[in-house]
Amino acid sequence: MTAVADTPATSTLRDGAFGNARSLVCRECSHEVELGPHYACPECFGPLEVAYDFPQVTRAEIEAGPRNIWRYKALLPVPTDIEQSPNTEPGFTRLLRADNLARELGIDTLWVKDDSTNPTNSFKDRVVACALSAARELDAKVFACPSTGNLANAVAAAGARAGIRTVVFIPSNLEQPKQVNSAIFTENLVAVNGNYDDVNKLASEIAGEEDGWAFVNVNVRPFYAEGSKTLGYEIAEQLGWRLPDQIVIPVASGSQLTKVDKSFQELIKLGLVEDKPYKIFGAQATGCSPVSVAFKGGTDAIRPVKPDTIAKSLAIGNPADGIYVLDICRRSGGAVEDITDDEVRDGIVLLARTEGIFTETAGGTTVGVLKKLVETGQLDTTLETVVINTGHGLKTLDAISDRVGPAATIEPSYSAFTAANIV
Amino acid sequence: MTAVADTPATSTLRDGAFGNARSLVCRECSHEVELGPHYACPECFGPLEVAYDFPQVTRAEIEAGPRNIWRYKALLPVPTDIEQSPNTEPGFTRLLRADNLARELGIDTLWVKDDSTNPTNSFKDRVVACALSAARELDAKVFACPSTGNLANAVAAAGARAGIRTVVFIPSNLEQPKQVNSAIFTENLVAVNGNYDDVNKLASEIAGEEDGWAFVNVNVRPFYAEGSKTLGYEIAEQLGWRLPDQIVIPVASGSQLTKVDKSFQELIKLGLVEDKPYKIFGAQATGCSPVSVAFKGGTDAIRPVKPDTIAKSLAIGNPADGIYVLDICRRSGGAVEDITDDEVRDGIVLLARTEGIFTETAGGTTVGVLKKLVETGQLDTTLETVVINTGHGLKTLDAISDRVGPAATIEPSYSAFTAANIV
Ligand SMILES: Cc1ncc(COP(=O)(O)O)c(C=O)c1O
Ligand SMILES: Cc1ncc(COP(=O)(O)O)c(C=O)c1O
Ligand SMILES: [Zn+2]
Ligand SMILES: [Zn+2]
Repeated sequence: MTAVADTPATSTLRDGAFGNARSLVCRECSHEVELGPHYACPECFGPLEVAYDFPQVTRAEIEAGPRNIWRYKALLPVPTDIEQSPNTEPGFTRLLRADNLARELGIDTLWVKDDSTNPTNSFKDRVVACALSAARELDAKVFACPSTGNLANAVAAAGARAGIRTVVFIPSNLEQPKQVNSAIFTENLVAVNGNYDDVNKLASEIAGEEDGWAFVNVNVRPFYAEGSKTLGYEIAEQLGWRLPDQIVIPVASGSQLTKVDKSFQELIKLGLVEDKPYKIFGAQATGCSPVSVAFKGGTDAIRPVKPDTIAKSLAIGNPADGIYVLDICRRSGGAVEDITDDEVRDGIVLLARTEGIFTETAGGTTVGVLKKLVETGQLDTTLETVVINTGHGLKTLDAISDRVGPAATIEPSYSAFTAANIV
Repeated sequence: MTAVADTPATSTLRDGAFGNARSLVCRECSHEVELGPHYACPECFGPLEVAYDFPQVTRAEIEAGPRNIWRYKALLPVPTDIEQSPNTEPGFTRLLRADNLARELGIDTLWVKDDSTNPTNSFKDRVVACALSAARELDAKVFACPSTGNLANAVAAAGARAGIRTVVFIPSNLEQPKQVNSAIFTENLVAVNGNYDDVNKLASEIAGEEDGWAFVNVNVRPFYAEGSKTLGYEIAEQLGWRLPDQIVIPVASGSQLTKVDKSFQELIKLGLVEDKPYKIFGAQATGCSPVSVAFKGGTDAIRPVKPDTIAKSLAIGNPADGIYVLDICRRSGGAVEDITDDEVRDGIVLLARTEGIFTETAGGTTVGVLKKLVETGQLDTTLETVVINTGHGLKTLDAISDRVGPAATIEPSYSAFTAANIV
């Protein structure tokens, strides 16, 4: 197992370094290990997850907190003084009532949780903020990640602000906006000839060889992943401390979806929302749909694939949390569905034209899957539904730049305008 | 003067259509006209501005409001039920303590107000939300604007969400991301062969000929402009109901700067903050710096210019509110300064590397001018300073895409990584 840092100075954690977190627990065999830079179970190699001893937490305490994810700090593996450490202050993004899209799709009540307005314009700012806290507490020297793009943006920005050296690894064929949006923050953007799964393997190798590196989604992954819970907390709080009936979430590694489920369960256990059933749906692009294929095939085994889709941020062919996604979607009465790249593009335009939100291919996938779930009768249109927009369209311009453009190019005169017959 | 709508159905405004606004007052001769689609004084052709009869407004009332600009609705020309009308819910963006940038520049206390995380990633969502309300109350049929880019994005998105037809006019040489970011929302993006001032002239012509068109920054400009006040309100509230000592604001037409000043004055008059002096600084790019040139020349007359700068969002050669900017910056003890395009690019990289914020050329201009103000001794480095980031770097990628990029492109192996000598 990788030590993030095993220099003498960092061998002891300060008190409360991880807040109310108690230990790391194996998702497979429930073996517990102490809090630290561990991510695989020493008994069975299963993934480790943060477990807590929560105190009493009230709605009022949360509501009195800052307008970002730190209002939920009591529920995260972060110290109580987390706001004092420089970070990008992500979260508390808009939950928009989406009546136009609802009407278009024939759904009674629909909301869009819009994470495209996070500091680096994706939900990744949430997870990175939690990983940064862990890296700091573990006294890491380098803050790093393999990424399909958004994570690289978030890591590079958070690292710049925190004053920690960053190194981010991306597939060399990544969209140019996502490359620039990392390189602007860090001198150490590394393009790797290969797909995300190759980049991820390389990162694990480096994590195993180098000391003092915190790879946000590798050796501090348990802490990182907890950040996605804030999406669920916010949705519940913004609905007036209530869970939605149905929620549609994009799936790459599957981490986000599993953590939104965890957040809902925690809110119920803490008595912050009423206990009630909810269905979780996963969204993939057909060109990288290992979880959807397994769901439809009724199997538990996820067959890794070689991704081929414009939804590059979701292009993880070997999803670490895929089996948990399957379990959650099945148990909750939801589903995992996938759509073609053309449907992804349609989803982008549909969300923009109905709700004024410009999403990236991941959001096009989620909205397109929402549409397909309605059309195939898998989603109950009478139940209150939330769809998560996890990223920004400015990062995947090429996906739709041939679909939209000026209606006309005219000379600057009124007669040229009327001749163009615009409206 | 243009009627936004003079169909019979709209001749009467509903009660409270403009909230606590009383009338429109001429900035030049103080002549008052009734609230409506008027923007030029019938007496002297001076610009009209919204005047109010404010009730008692308390901090607690504001703090209990929504986490967007509508928390200040009592101070805006909008109805009390404004939250019920579909809009993009902009505002309440981050005010980030910028210690790294402060250290770099030698300033004691510095904050960045980050409007790049607004719904369409610029401060324009604020003004457009107010213009949309006016358009709605005036029963306009078309929601339109001439734009240097960001305004077009905001109008097209807000119109989509509100379900009102939009037509947006841009210079045909505009950055591609800003074009796509409008076209994604509207079928009626019109590219005009000419610069912004040509586009603006065309818009005025159309506004004069067509009925039922609300051009946000032409015939409903008085209502539109009020939206920028929310930047000032938020900064004061986020500082703990306190005004900063100094603030640096980009200047295109000059509207934003004048409205931030107005907001501070209103907060003082309403007793929401303590009365104290503050200095306002304006930022321009040298390639379009008519206000800065006038400031330095000690004159009141602003000589229009033909813009030639990468800061296209600030490229207004004939700024409508330029003389008011001059007056405010002089009266307050501030200044107007300008920098070269290379310094604009440096400003973009500086903000990214120090604070993890990716700004567009307008923000590069503002940060670069902040730096120059310090270097030339025009800014007091011992006073608390706020700098406004008004837009997002993803919209002006080309400006810096040759300045930053991958440090290396490698094969996916550990040996290739070590050979590349990244860190
Ligand atoms: C925009 C966006 N949405 C969704 C996801 C999926 O995240 P997860 O790996 O947690 O399933 C990603 C992952 O990179 C992403 O970038
Ligand atoms: C990003 C950005 N910042 C600042 C401005 C300046 O606004 P104003 O015209 O109010 O001076 C603009 C205007 O388009 C802009 O797009
Ligand atoms: Zn185990
Ligand atoms: Zn007048």
